[in-house]
Amino acid sequence: MNKQDLIYLDNAATSRIKPDQVYGAWDFYTRQIGTSPGRGSHFLAIEASRCLYKARKAISQYFVSPSTENIVFTKNATEAFNLFLNGYLNIGDHVLVSPFEHNAIFRPLNKLKDQGVIDYSILPVEVFQPGKEELFCEFIRENTKLFVMPLASNITGEIVFSSTISRYLNKKGIKILLDAAQGAGRIRLDMEEDKLDYIVFTGHKDLYGLPGTGGLCSRNYLNIEPLIQGGTGIHAETYINPDINPERYEAGTLNMPGIWSLKSGIKYIEENVERIKDKEEKLFVILKKGLEENSNIRIHKYNISEKSLPIISFTAKDYSCQEMAYKLNKEKICVRAGMHCNILGHTSLGTKENGTIRVSLDYFNKEKEINKFLDVINKITKR
Amino acid sequence: MNKQDLIYLDNAATSRIKPDQVYGAWDFYTRQIGTSPGRGSHFLAIEASRCLYKARKAISQYFVSPSTENIVFTKNATEAFNLFLNGYLNIGDHVLVSPFEHNAIFRPLNKLKDQGVIDYSILPVEVFQPGKEELFCEFIRENTKLFVMPLASNITGEIVFSSTISRYLNKKGIKILLDAAQGAGRIRLDMEEDKLDYIVFTGHKDLYGLPGTGGLCSRNYLNIEPLIQGGTGIHAETYINPDINPERYEAGTLNMPGIWSLKSGIKYIEENVERIKDKEEKLFVILKKGLEENSNIRIHKYNISEKSLPIISFTAKDYSCQEMAYKLNKEKICVRAGMHCNILGHTSLGTKENGTIRVSLDYFNKEKEINKFLDVINKITKR
Repeated sequence: MNKQDLIYLDNAATSRIKPDQVYGAWDFYTRQIGTSPGRGSHFLAIEASRCLYKARKAISQYFVSPSTENIVFTKNATEAFNLFLNGYLNIGDHVLVSPFEHNAIFRPLNKLKDQGVIDYSILPVEVFQPGKEELFCEFIRENTKLFVMPLASNITGEIVFSSTISRYLNKKGIKILLDAAQGAGRIRLDMEEDKLDYIVFTGHKDLYGLPGTGGLCSRNYLNIEPLIQGGTGIHAETYINPDINPERYEAGTLNMPGIWSLKSGIKYIEENVERIKDKEEKLFVILKKGLEENSNIRIHKYNISEKSLPIISFTAKDYSCQEMAYKLNKEKICVRAGMHCNILGHTSLGTKENGTIRVSLDYFNKEKEINKFLDVINKITKR
Repeated sequence: MNKQDLIYLDNAATSRIKPDQVYGAWDFYTRQIGTSPGRGSHFLAIEASRCLYKARKAISQYFVSPSTENIVFTKNATEAFNLFLNGYLNIGDHVLVSPFEHNAIFRPLNKLKDQGVIDYSILPVEVFQPGKEELFCEFIRENTKLFVMPLASNITGEIVFSSTISRYLNKKGIKILLDAAQGAGRIRLDMEEDKLDYIVFTGHKDLYGLPGTGGLCSRNYLNIEPLIQGGTGIHAETYINPDINPERYEAGTLNMPGIWSLKSGIKYIEENVERIKDKEEKLFVILKKGLEENSNIRIHKYNISEKSLPIISFTAKDYSCQEMAYKLNKEKICVRAGMHCNILGHTSLGTKENGTIRVSLDYFNKEKEINKFLDVINKITKR
């Protein structure tokens, strides 16, 4: 199969095409710098440290997080969740969990519950409808320490985050962890203004970075137990990681070419924000309309928000999701069918038995690709 | 400073120049595949899974590990040590630790000791001298479960590993964890033959991969507690990672471009093993001889083996290591001064107060670079 002819509509899993600047940044770092920050005092090691600082600064500014010392780079969002949840939660803590959480959060939470460390409550979908934040009250316990919420559902694309909720819970003294893995490049956040205590992000989705990057941002001084012990490039003499932020959370050699590329991806987004938004919205309208007009297609939504990322989940009459994905793949169209690493989200959506077919767009998709996809879907479902 | 003129002699920290094939593999994966294994059933997701399998196979063959299901990819060697030590050791276990261990192993072990989980004994240097393995006996306890040993010292370059030791301890029922971060690309290992139960490796040093890659190999079926819980791309319906190897240890999006490049780095080594060895040996002889002839230079060694990686540690009369590194840097020579993330190794070497200057070579170094370095050192120390 010629990869050039493929229509890639699985951008919510990973954005496949990156801006040229991102490839260029990787190439620059790898060939020109090629060393690790904090390892040595020579020219190249210092250049590496400068690059790391600049990348941290870019993340800190993008999320309006007050200080670079509270930006921790990890290999992916999943590591960041494990670092945060294991390091922050203590015996007896209670966590409020949105019903949209994917396994990157849900599994570490379940592990902590299985170990008898924490308890959690899964909130009903209704409390996320506009103006319903008072409903949170009945789930808040005396020991409720944390609320976990995604920026957007990775299944339906609907925007879950609302600053009304985060400000409401902030007043109740509950800390907020926002999962920005899906949507960080599309929806601008302001940790200060929105009272977001912690954000987890990934590089390889809509921030246009590469796989192998992600991280945790903290609004205030981050003081949790590190997940990983090891060489930090500073204070080599201590027997465990030194208490210095953010290095104590980043033991081991960092993926610096990836981190440097991520900075470049964020810059691209900042410079093209309107252009990206306009094109994605235009493509998404065509996609949505086309699917809505097909009476054999059922679109699945939580109905919590009018706002959405360019992601849509559907099922088709007479076809299992796997069959449909197989048929689309034969027509060189790449979508994702099944559970999308999100059992909780599919349970809340009523689709946990069979999953859904997810189509997710990106700035680099073309209108003709969407039309081709709709033609193929109509052909499959209407015969 | 023009980066092209720099003489990079810090290859033990990271090999800075990679073979063209490694850059090419990264480029191919990123631009042609660009997706994640296990995420989707479309053509590109299946190609991604094939690439991951091939990379696992390459690692498994390189270390003569019997099965790909026991090869786990991590972001670096440090994560692999944390995964293994935290997942494998239980309350009451005792660990034998070589006196050469860097912080990537020593810190997670100390953390476990501080938490009251394990106890460890640091072995004296003497037991690593040839024919002294009987000396191990007095350190072995009834609850000794694991022995940790590096392939080579990251300070002196001396080869620490000996199959006599691993076979001896194997007979005593003690499992062996070999840290191959330094030297995996230079010294061939055979997990079966050498009775090595677990190997940790890193990609970005002498395996010619990129930062952001590393892993754990197990000779037998790996059944430990995962360090990270999250989406594994399979069995999305379970509330914690499914019991399937190696996926249960690799939650979250993998650094696939890095993993694919690492496969290419290993292939390069296999195809050029003699050429690399000959050139590095030749350069190392010049370096060693040059330093030995300078009476103001003191070379530091454990004196446990005649065999060495092309790494040497020294101190210079009348100069602190930092001063010397500073002076070398002014002459565009990059070395590493200080502790090399290895407090235990420097304690055993008697250099923990001031550290050493480490010079580490690579196949891509040139003879004229070594001569220039020696000229500069002689000029600095003899005036």
